[in-house]
Amino acid sequence: MPSGSTAGIRSFFEPKSVAVAGVSEDPNKLGSIIFANLVANAEEGSLRATVYALNPAHSRIGPHACYPTIRSLPSVPELLIIAVPVALTPKLVEDAARAGVKAVVMVPSGFAEAGREELEKGIGAVARRHGMRILGPNTIGLLDTRSGVNSLFLRSTKKLPDGSEVVALLKPLKGDVAVITQSGHLGEVVAEELAAEGVGIRALVGAGNQLDVSVEEIIRYFADDPHTRVVAVYLEGVRDGRRFMRAAAYATKKKPLVVLKVGKTAAGARAALTHTASLVGDYQVYQAAFRQAGVVEAGSITELLDCCVSLSMLPRTAGRRLVIVTNAGGVGAIAADEAGKSGLDAKPLSDAEVQMMHSAFRDAGFASNASFNNPIDLTASATTGEFVRAAELALGLPDYDLALIFPSHQTPAIDADIAIRLEGVVSGARKPVCMSVMGSSELAVKIHNHFMANGIPSFPTPERAVRALSAVPTCEALRTDARAPADLVPRPFRALSRLRGPIPQRVVARLLTAYGIHEPRSVVVRSPEDFRRGEEVGFPVACKLLSRQLLHKADAGGVILGVAARSELSSAFLRFKTLAKRRGLSFDGMLVQEMVGGVEMILGGTRDATFGPTVLFGVGGSYTELFRDFSLGIAPLTRKEAAALVDRCRLSRALDGYRGGPLVDRKELARMVSSFSRIMGENPAIDQIEVNPLVATRKDILALDARVITAPRKPRRR
Amino acid sequence: MPSGSTAGIRSFFEPKSVAVAGVSEDPNKLGSIIFANLVANAEEGSLRATVYALNPAHSRIGPHACYPTIRSLPSVPELLIIAVPVALTPKLVEDAARAGVKAVVMVPSGFAEAGREELEKGIGAVARRHGMRILGPNTIGLLDTRSGVNSLFLRSTKKLPDGSEVVALLKPLKGDVAVITQSGHLGEVVAEELAAEGVGIRALVGAGNQLDVSVEEIIRYFADDPHTRVVAVYLEGVRDGRRFMRAAAYATKKKPLVVLKVGKTAAGARAALTHTASLVGDYQVYQAAFRQAGVVEAGSITELLDCCVSLSMLPRTAGRRLVIVTNAGGVGAIAADEAGKSGLDAKPLSDAEVQMMHSAFRDAGFASNASFNNPIDLTASATTGEFVRAAELALGLPDYDLALIFPSHQTPAIDADIAIRLEGVVSGARKPVCMSVMGSSELAVKIHNHFMANGIPSFPTPERAVRALSAVPTCEALRTDARAPADLVPRPFRALSRLRGPIPQRVVARLLTAYGIHEPRSVVVRSPEDFRRGEEVGFPVACKLLSRQLLHKADAGGVILGVAARSELSSAFLRFKTLAKRRGLSFDGMLVQEMVGGVEMILGGTRDATFGPTVLFGVGGSYTELFRDFSLGIAPLTRKEAAALVDRCRLSRALDGYRGGPLVDRKELARMVSSFSRIMGENPAIDQIEVNPLVATRKDILALDARVITAPRKPRRR
Repeated sequence: MPSGSTAGIRSFFEPKSVAVAGVSEDPNKLGSIIFANLVANAEEGSLRATVYALNPAHSRIGPHACYPTIRSLPSVPELLIIAVPVALTPKLVEDAARAGVKAVVMVPSGFAEAGREELEKGIGAVARRHGMRILGPNTIGLLDTRSGVNSLFLRSTKKLPDGSEVVALLKPLKGDVAVITQSGHLGEVVAEELAAEGVGIRALVGAGNQLDVSVEEIIRYFADDPHTRVVAVYLEGVRDGRRFMRAAAYATKKKPLVVLKVGKTAAGARAALTHTASLVGDYQVYQAAFRQAGVVEAGSITELLDCCVSLSMLPRTAGRRLVIVTNAGGVGAIAADEAGKSGLDAKPLSDAEVQMMHSAFRDAGFASNASFNNPIDLTASATTGEFVRAAELALGLPDYDLALIFPSHQTPAIDADIAIRLEGVVSGARKPVCMSVMGSSELAVKIHNHFMANGIPSFPTPERAVRALSAVPTCEALRTDARAPADLVPRPFRALSRLRGPIPQRVVARLLTAYGIHEPRSVVVRSPEDFRRGEEVGFPVACKLLSRQLLHKADAGGVILGVAARSELSSAFLRFKTLAKRRGLSFDGMLVQEMVGGVEMILGGTRDATFGPTVLFGVGGSYTELFRDFSLGIAPLTRKEAAALVDRCRLSRALDGYRGGPLVDRKELARMVSSFSRIMGENPAIDQIEVNPLVATRKDILALDARVITAPRKPRRR
Repeated sequence: MPSGSTAGIRSFFEPKSVAVAGVSEDPNKLGSIIFANLVANAEEGSLRATVYALNPAHSRIGPHACYPTIRSLPSVPELLIIAVPVALTPKLVEDAARAGVKAVVMVPSGFAEAGREELEKGIGAVARRHGMRILGPNTIGLLDTRSGVNSLFLRSTKKLPDGSEVVALLKPLKGDVAVITQSGHLGEVVAEELAAEGVGIRALVGAGNQLDVSVEEIIRYFADDPHTRVVAVYLEGVRDGRRFMRAAAYATKKKPLVVLKVGKTAAGARAALTHTASLVGDYQVYQAAFRQAGVVEAGSITELLDCCVSLSMLPRTAGRRLVIVTNAGGVGAIAADEAGKSGLDAKPLSDAEVQMMHSAFRDAGFASNASFNNPIDLTASATTGEFVRAAELALGLPDYDLALIFPSHQTPAIDADIAIRLEGVVSGARKPVCMSVMGSSELAVKIHNHFMANGIPSFPTPERAVRALSAVPTCEALRTDARAPADLVPRPFRALSRLRGPIPQRVVARLLTAYGIHEPRSVVVRSPEDFRRGEEVGFPVACKLLSRQLLHKADAGGVILGVAARSELSSAFLRFKTLAKRRGLSFDGMLVQEMVGGVEMILGGTRDATFGPTVLFGVGGSYTELFRDFSLGIAPLTRKEAAALVDRCRLSRALDGYRGGPLVDRKELARMVSSFSRIMGENPAIDQIEVNPLVATRKDILALDARVITAPRKPRRR
């Protein structure tokens, strides 16, 4: 059963009646194509809804009655598909809403995406008032392979110059992959390419301008739908990042959610006042959100398609140990390389396993020079019988979670019935198995199709097969940890709430202390009389120029390390005073700080326009931007998530006593990162925050320097 | 004309006569298949050589005469293809060599790869004595589409269980891609997949065990061959890395050489006594060699195929500016993302260009809401006429070097003749243009095939199209800089030549000085009497424990920085003495060194078993292994190559005054790297060498620490 929030959109997918506005005598008009498709579905029985044509200019369209208005219809349609010029839409929507239509698919473009925001908003308001839901505008709408609802306006055939008809579009097949798209063409092509592989879709839905029904609602609908096994999304962007994460985390707990995100190279518009802000691009934030919410990210159209195939056809597993069976050594080597890249473990067979296989081959009377390593290479002389037996034995190895089987059917001793023989063996396996079949001959196509038709995923290269297989454990790992971030509850830090612009260092220090992040022993020296207090910190010390206008002290010459005597303290003080004056900076004193050496980290936060507060952990110090070794989360993070954030950096290896460096208290660090990650959510006035360096010694984790940028005004939604 | 070194192998490709040993009455035997293929080629006229069957057991094979021995043949065959059991091969080779056969393809396996090295060597010796060349053993041999020579033993049809015949193998087409392979199956599949796309091959050659004819000779042969446009190689490994680089650089100066290398994940066997050695894996060395010799590396089978298509069909350019034309916005966005990943510049159109396109559309009377950005998005409502005109205009923009055109033929207003209309426009373009056609309908296939048949590369996804396009400028850039490394001429450094094992620090310093790499001001303190000399270096100083057994001082607590007084000097000295004693290390004194701060780099060298001396540049100091930011070259490097080596590191950004750091003299650094890269070649006794850190200040580039490991014995070839 659908949850409350998705109940309203059921009328799109399972309406009792559908009306199409914009049906005309020209069969090439969008409305006519849509109407014809629906009528055809109704006639063949795949659509059980009543279908009506709407057009005030006609009373009949071919053999079908045509009605002038919604009021004039024999009954109120549950779903209305609008395919009329933009100017006619407001009246139609108003009529539909008043008549009690439940759902409207608005196909036309020319609304907000063309600068007509007000028109779109007005339509939205009318619909909301009457509780009527709208999909679109500017969308292909939807195609539901179970109910037969179809608003796609593409013609399935076209005429060639010689007048002959040619199939221009493969009809999507009935299946269990739900495809949600922000690009009509891409969604259609995904459905078509899956159909070409014999893989069906549950539905195809174009989100369009999301005037009302959002991508998130559609995701939730298919999360709840018992006939959907995989949800695939083509995403250009989301409006409300946290709403997306909630919907995604809801879905991924139930089934795989695969997303292809575009706009990877778009530059962020934010002014980069901190390292953190300059490191964090829009796409990085999306990636962090995907990971946290359990979304499998596809790197290309091909990968999206391949993941749909593998995740919809294969059983679940969290294991990553892969066994490879082939009779083509080169292919085996390529598959093993790809396993490494995809995070799978193509570990060698144990001695016992090798012995077992040898003796099984001896028992079968095979005179084979197979190599029972991993890849198991049966060599080009392998017979069908040897290949099938080896596959059977390999699939039985309890120490492997996944299998790739690559039969080269081109070699002389492999018979044309290899697919039938292998199918029997593979179908019995309880673990995910992918085939790869290369070549484009009739036999190659037959073998590939035989596997696919029998529910065994098959791919045209070993790399694609391994990559698609790897999506299974990846999905399982993501699912386990999937979680939407906690709600943001403002709890502003007092001393901060009245300030704007650069925040004085001492206020920043107190803020951090309140969140359990401490600085080294230090005092502020404002005049030569304070030198004695400075001395008490204990030489050698670090001296730092305090000025609220100065964000990056070290870059400006505002840090002197290893100050070892009172005389040096005084010369540092004078130097800073002069420096501040020369640069026109306020001189807020000199910080005299205990010298602390260790692993230098950065802890940062930015406020993303779409996803809100983020938290960044990575390499600190002067190499932060150079090495870009960081990981990003959507704040706040639990301690477990914070620990994972730390683990994802290369730097994390340095925390475990790398090359004589300190052994850092990981638990304490995770607690600190988690605590830090609450700051921006609880303090809406902060736009950027950064602790750099945060230094881990064997004993402590201390903030050596930090800065806070307050927001000039509320960040606007994009 | 072939160069001297490849003249000997012409007999494989253009023999006047061919004999096949191992022809029998069983048509499924390898010899029988090969003989039948050759006879068929001779009959259809594609092979002009005389073909003979050899088998002492028969006097006829079907309608053909069969001869017992080579001596008994009507004439001495120029080429002999051997497909007999291993045991019979030595006699056959001996007979062939004595009779004056010029070239032998040895198909059988069971030689060195099965442990029979001696057998293989013996055969090689006989052939060499008579100047007879051997390809193989353990190979598919070769298929030459121009001369009709074919030793492939794969059957083109197989029988299905119902008794019907099915095509099991697409016949390679005649074309200009030479395919060289170390895996018979993979080579065959590449030829087959290219044939499926209508792309022909010049030849397919399996290198087998390379008993005599090497991959390098075959590369040179096709480099010289006027009918070859692209050379594609599937490589598992090479025997002599520098011989490979010489052949590759020779070829890449003339035409594209694309390599798919497997074994990316294989771990190196070398003991990692230095950071350098632990960073450098076998595959990294191959990558460095490929880059230097101008080889385009393909990351997957798909990429190898796609590069063969684009590089064989497109004109050359060094430019990377890409314009994208589409009527599917989502696809445009995906293509732009891939352009970024592939190093292409999908820069926006200038205002003038946008105006030009708008006015051209107005002049044509198009009522289009196209967006003339880049991607140029004609939207789903575009007509064929609009699309074709936009493509024409885009291809005429002088500010773009490359173009991707993606027509979505599925939209209603695009006619089925879009391919014919676009072909006219694209064929006239003087720059590389790729098409992408998605979908699997009859029309989609027709459009794709129309482009391919008319010499316009077309790919099934925009990502693959962009990636394939990017190979054109990549290839051009590589070609320009391609160069085999200079020969290694030993010129041992005197003080080093007598030593074995760890080398004392002072000898290392002198060696480096001889190569123009200097250390900071420093003295060695061996007893308290030397403290005064230590002081003269000028406080603060760095103190370092000298011990020939100690490779990584800092890790062992053997470095104290910021020593600022005589008393500290003396306590450091005592501490080191104690430390050495406790650890059982020799105490060779304490180095008192001027404190130098700046960008920390590493300069290293290892001796690869296949490629010989390598040189590494990267991040120095304690983060070397953590960040793995390094680049690798095959030594020695010219100054230009050395400068490129430095440029390839992320760290190189820090050399140009990054965040207040020093501005490093790049020219001096390149000179230093180039000079350093000669050390290992000139000093065969050195197994590993490392300067870490090499510190760049605003003034100087100084070696703060260095180590040399001498080889325990001559490194063995793998």
